[in-house]
Amino acid sequence: MMLVTAATGAFFSVANHSPESRGVNSKKSSFGSLQVNSNSPRRTVLNQLPDWSTAITTASLAQRMMLDWKHKHNDTFGLGKLIQDGFVFRQSFIIRSYEVGPDRAASIQTMMNHLQETALSHAKCIVLMDAGFGSTPEMSKRNLIWVVAKMQVLVDRYPTWGDVVQIDTWVTASGKNGMRRDWLVCDSNTGDILMRASSLWVMMNKETRKLSKMPDKVRTEIEGVFVDSPPLLDGDSRKLPKLDETTADNTRTGLSPGWSDLDVNQHVNNVKYIGWILESVPIQILEGYELAGMTLEYRRECRRESVLQALTSVLQNADSDLANSSNVECQHLLRLESGEDVVKGMTEWRPRFANRINNNGQFPEVM
Amino acid sequence: MMLVTAATGAFFSVANHSPESRGVNSKKSSFGSLQVNSNSPRRTVLNQLPDWSTAITTASLAQRMMLDWKHKHNDTFGLGKLIQDGFVFRQSFIIRSYEVGPDRAASIQTMMNHLQETALSHAKCIVLMDAGFGSTPEMSKRNLIWVVAKMQVLVDRYPTWGDVVQIDTWVTASGKNGMRRDWLVCDSNTGDILMRASSLWVMMNKETRKLSKMPDKVRTEIEGVFVDSPPLLDGDSRKLPKLDETTADNTRTGLSPGWSDLDVNQHVNNVKYIGWILESVPIQILEGYELAGMTLEYRRECRRESVLQALTSVLQNADSDLANSSNVECQHLLRLESGEDVVKGMTEWRPRFANRINNNGQFPEVM
Repeated sequence: MMLVTAATGAFFSVANHSPESRGVNSKKSSFGSLQVNSNSPRRTVLNQLPDWSTAITTASLAQRMMLDWKHKHNDTFGLGKLIQDGFVFRQSFIIRSYEVGPDRAASIQTMMNHLQETALSHAKCIVLMDAGFGSTPEMSKRNLIWVVAKMQVLVDRYPTWGDVVQIDTWVTASGKNGMRRDWLVCDSNTGDILMRASSLWVMMNKETRKLSKMPDKVRTEIEGVFVDSPPLLDGDSRKLPKLDETTADNTRTGLSPGWSDLDVNQHVNNVKYIGWILESVPIQILEGYELAGMTLEYRRECRRESVLQALTSVLQNADSDLANSSNVECQHLLRLESGEDVVKGMTEWRPRFANRINNNGQFPEVM
Repeated sequence: MMLVTAATGAFFSVANHSPESRGVNSKKSSFGSLQVNSNSPRRTVLNQLPDWSTAITTASLAQRMMLDWKHKHNDTFGLGKLIQDGFVFRQSFIIRSYEVGPDRAASIQTMMNHLQETALSHAKCIVLMDAGFGSTPEMSKRNLIWVVAKMQVLVDRYPTWGDVVQIDTWVTASGKNGMRRDWLVCDSNTGDILMRASSLWVMMNKETRKLSKMPDKVRTEIEGVFVDSPPLLDGDSRKLPKLDETTADNTRTGLSPGWSDLDVNQHVNNVKYIGWILESVPIQILEGYELAGMTLEYRRECRRESVLQALTSVLQNADSDLANSSNVECQHLLRLESGEDVVKGMTEWRPRFANRINNNGQFPEVM
């Protein structure tokens, strides 16, 4: 199903299945909605597990812990819980005052932070996390950490201050060496779908900082928690023109990480990259539009001493009137000053609601 | 009680009373601890209320709502609750993965964000908040908002990923036109005091952006929730030398707010200023030391179009060996490029624990 009108091009498509079909439709009909399976979704997930009999043996610890968790854990402290026979993890977040902008809506960085937290809580609760950000015990033995290779996000609506969002997440195999993680974000109160995201993760050696194949012992450790489910978002396969300083509409140079931008994997956290990319987006887009979707390909990590440049090229409607209701697409490149690509990306922006901006260009204060 | 050794000068002193003496002592004896009153602290607070009989009449709505809240609200959703007969508000936070740095400790900005959230939750729960950040209904009628004039913070220990912190906050009158808000942050598990903060707030007209006296009707609205209690922290009264580009050790220019740095009061949020100030702190201090305390005086707001400079002067031990265990003090100035002061400040830094840094200058990954 296409998510944007033909006029603005096919940016994302939504797969028709999720491990837990929710029985609710998104209010944003132009952006599509998840379909309800006619079969019981729980059964579907279990039936689709390719090698359940093997998995229950090889990943018996994880399975036992999941069942244990499921029966004991009531999520009193907002740490999340397993649902769907332990294959989907659910955690809720209240949107705080410091996570919203002047329009009272959560920022994309806030939403990405919540996705990260849910993924780590998931890894923690199925006892697959040892040290680091989601590393399993067998990964830790081999000095391996997870790094994100690709992130696709589609935002139907940003929650606002005080809203409670409910995030469901699950993991699947991706090829022989990767892991895909999907997230479905809903408004806890209305059940509306707010955001969908799909990501690809690979392993990196913490010492050599080189990518690694998935060792058999790690696969054995984690395959028992993999769901057999198509991705929530299918990516854009268009070949993009090369972006450099001659084709970019906006370039921001001299970007360097602060001490607090590093995460426990000792490199700049992937959410920080999004902030840098946004710094190169023209101000009239940042103020007149809101981010509706993005695809980011992570090519290289960057560390404390890195200095970066962010380049943005506006592909459509660069000088459009804000009253014009059509979406805008941008292409992005984050690269080291020495020239190597760090992140390549595409974003799609939709006009902010005109009735939320008053004559001073400010958002009215309404609770 | 002095909080730092004589060698580094008196930076802060801690008052001996809080509305709720906790019956626990801080583990950091060199930084002092709050004393336990021999009288029941609850009684002490009530007895100290100067005009209770008047307050119960003039602020009867707030009082009734507080009692109502107290009996009904069990804080299932982590939104906080009133304690101490409604005069102290308590809220707990789990430290998330995205709120910590490479050493797994929460950043000062995270802690300041949690203080802000607790203050707003407090205002919300006693039904004194209308629109904006903590504005009462009578303030909203007059287009008044709260702005922070001074912030003092003392950090005994930073919580780490997964810790639950419990924040108590209360408000008192400050002169005829101001309000003081204090916070006491504890480790929920151990009861250790992690952080103390004291702040002064005044009113600003949202249209003219000029400071305002406190109108009588607003005072009537809020005085019923004021506690009669000395400040948790007594400020440093030293006269500091003037800081400019000739005396600064480090200057960072061209700082400008991003779209997401504005808050619902349409100006740059005060926590963002702290991030800018930290950008001008020399890297050897940021990496070798941790922020132990700060005093910030807010002189002027800054808005979307402002361009700023951050200046830092290291007052003591500028080139000290990191193995040296003495603290470092810095003086800061954040100013508009046109010259007007925005924030003047002092920070104190203590060496990071040597055993938490390995030979690569990295923090070991331990859970």
